[in-house]
Amino acid sequence: MHERLQRLRAALAERDLPAMLLTAPTSRRYLSGFTGSAGALLISAEAAFLLTDGRYTVRAAAEAPAFTLREVRAALKPMPKLVAELAVELNLTRLGFEAAAMTVAEYQQFAQVLDKTVELVATENVVEGLRMVKDAGEIELLRRAAAITDAALAAVLPALTPEMTEREAAWRIEVALHDLGADGPSFPIIVAAGRNSARPHHEPGHDRLGEGQPIIIDMGARLNGYHADLTRTIVLGQPDDTFRTVYAATLEAQQAAIRSLRPGLPWSEADAIARQVIETAGYGRGIAHSLGHGVGLAIHEAPWLRITAPDAPPGPPLQVGMVTSVEPGIYLPEWGGVRIEDLVLITEEGCELLSHAAR
Amino acid sequence: MHERLQRLRAALAERDLPAMLLTAPTSRRYLSGFTGSAGALLISAEAAFLLTDGRYTVRAAAEAPAFTLREVRAALKPMPKLVAELAVELNLTRLGFEAAAMTVAEYQQFAQVLDKTVELVATENVVEGLRMVKDAGEIELLRRAAAITDAALAAVLPALTPEMTEREAAWRIEVALHDLGADGPSFPIIVAAGRNSARPHHEPGHDRLGEGQPIIIDMGARLNGYHADLTRTIVLGQPDDTFRTVYAATLEAQQAAIRSLRPGLPWSEADAIARQVIETAGYGRGIAHSLGHGVGLAIHEAPWLRITAPDAPPGPPLQVGMVTSVEPGIYLPEWGGVRIEDLVLITEEGCELLSHAAR
Repeated sequence: MHERLQRLRAALAERDLPAMLLTAPTSRRYLSGFTGSAGALLISAEAAFLLTDGRYTVRAAAEAPAFTLREVRAALKPMPKLVAELAVELNLTRLGFEAAAMTVAEYQQFAQVLDKTVELVATENVVEGLRMVKDAGEIELLRRAAAITDAALAAVLPALTPEMTEREAAWRIEVALHDLGADGPSFPIIVAAGRNSARPHHEPGHDRLGEGQPIIIDMGARLNGYHADLTRTIVLGQPDDTFRTVYAATLEAQQAAIRSLRPGLPWSEADAIARQVIETAGYGRGIAHSLGHGVGLAIHEAPWLRITAPDAPPGPPLQVGMVTSVEPGIYLPEWGGVRIEDLVLITEEGCELLSHAAR
Repeated sequence: MHERLQRLRAALAERDLPAMLLTAPTSRRYLSGFTGSAGALLISAEAAFLLTDGRYTVRAAAEAPAFTLREVRAALKPMPKLVAELAVELNLTRLGFEAAAMTVAEYQQFAQVLDKTVELVATENVVEGLRMVKDAGEIELLRRAAAITDAALAAVLPALTPEMTEREAAWRIEVALHDLGADGPSFPIIVAAGRNSARPHHEPGHDRLGEGQPIIIDMGARLNGYHADLTRTIVLGQPDDTFRTVYAATLEAQQAAIRSLRPGLPWSEADAIARQVIETAGYGRGIAHSLGHGVGLAIHEAPWLRITAPDAPPGPPLQVGMVTSVEPGIYLPEWGGVRIEDLVLITEEGCELLSHAAR
């Protein structure tokens, strides 16, 4: 935590900001260790305050010993008023905030209270920028979350039958994740059978898994706030010819993208490579989403492996220590879909797979 | 859905807004039926558009037949650009948006694209205002979610032992909710034993339930997007004297508040009544949160049963059809806590309990 605070303070100095108000749950947790669902951090070069309400003060004191605790009180001392007091205490005239985490309504409340004395400065990607390169402890948690995910899928696959519903399969996966030590699923588990698999974010329903049709399973374990993300597409019984060709094209796209990953590669480039493979195979119209996303304290975070607009510059470069999903998919509404997703860690040499589930 | 759209259009006319952009997930679902995790609605007096990306287009077409679907494409046609096109198509010069659902970063993106031609107008509580009075279908779902919650607690209580950990108890509740037909828990289940129960939002850990100490269980079933919320405080074995007096004070506060609930009562008044009971019992310092919150498509929504600042007017009045939690609590850091929570429906005569778990 100490090193993270130092890195944040360096980032503030770079932006010429004397202090910053952090309201994103991931920022709170990353910088302070506090896991509650409400609160804010106010960090200057010298001071570090944690502001939360009476539901969390006991937990906050235990989890974030490096921070000075100040209590928000709904009626008497709402968050903006408390921040205004601290601004006076710290003699602040400018205060950065996280534009992607603060709503316009919250901003208006802060502006109303602070307006005369403190300038609110919108910032973007300050903590996200720190978080996207993972330290050893984070990589270890992501590795363990990925291993639990692999093991849960392996445990459930033999039990799947054509008569089972998507919901029942999803629930069995959830139970397996729990039994293997996950704190919960990383996100609502997707089990999409037959034509439902043409919906990349299908919600499992009462349709049966069936025989001879694609079944997309997208799942992940959450562990100490860190997420895993894994997708496999399977068939119970004999796949049809469409499945064979669509699956082959998707796998080839994923492998081509994975081979390309290395420090310095623009984020957008890996997506372009996978797209090219799918378009060459004649399935360009079946592309429905970008290639991948970073994974950490958030299930979707930087880096973003997606193409940029034709007139825009390529994305920023991959760096050693980034962890990202690589998940090309092909979706044909009248038939179904195939998606294959693994988590990879960017290394000096290229990348290392964190997931090891059979394809 | 048709009636809801009409009510929204009436609300727009009242505010002199020709159209509104809705980005809150609850607003999307309430007005269109679309259950995906990303997208927006753009609604004018004549038109109703649903804007979402390729992961959801198939689902959106199925779930929201009354809406015209337009596809967001990450690089080529991001949401702001699509909204700008529709603004031209509908000849809009002003467009309302949900200030509590849009981040400052999103606002800046919209403003950049729309700035010259369309005035963005911040609104608050437009759809929340429509949602806080429930219709018959919503009440039925909330009733069923509450019944599942009651049944799950009743199923698990006999299996709890002093040796069991908080996490294991929470997991058993989650399994019971699933087995009884819930789509999932309404929120992460709280099981807080001993001193942990002094933390209103404790996260279940590896501490054992133990004997003779308070155990707070806060749980709820989610069903078709609607939430239940129930808290009971129990003791395995013999409670100590503190428990008896604290429990009695909490229960008396809850009962006094419930007796007071009726159409026309200011939201803040019920909280003041419960506080008074707890203060009279000598536990005023143990109050850590307000009395209750509305429950519906969101687990926390209007009405807000909380006191207002000394110099502020009382809250707005309760209305027939509102559904709210009533959950006073007393928290003593050196000992533990007690919270008792039920869901109630405001009726012509006063209120009706939706939860029936034994106290």
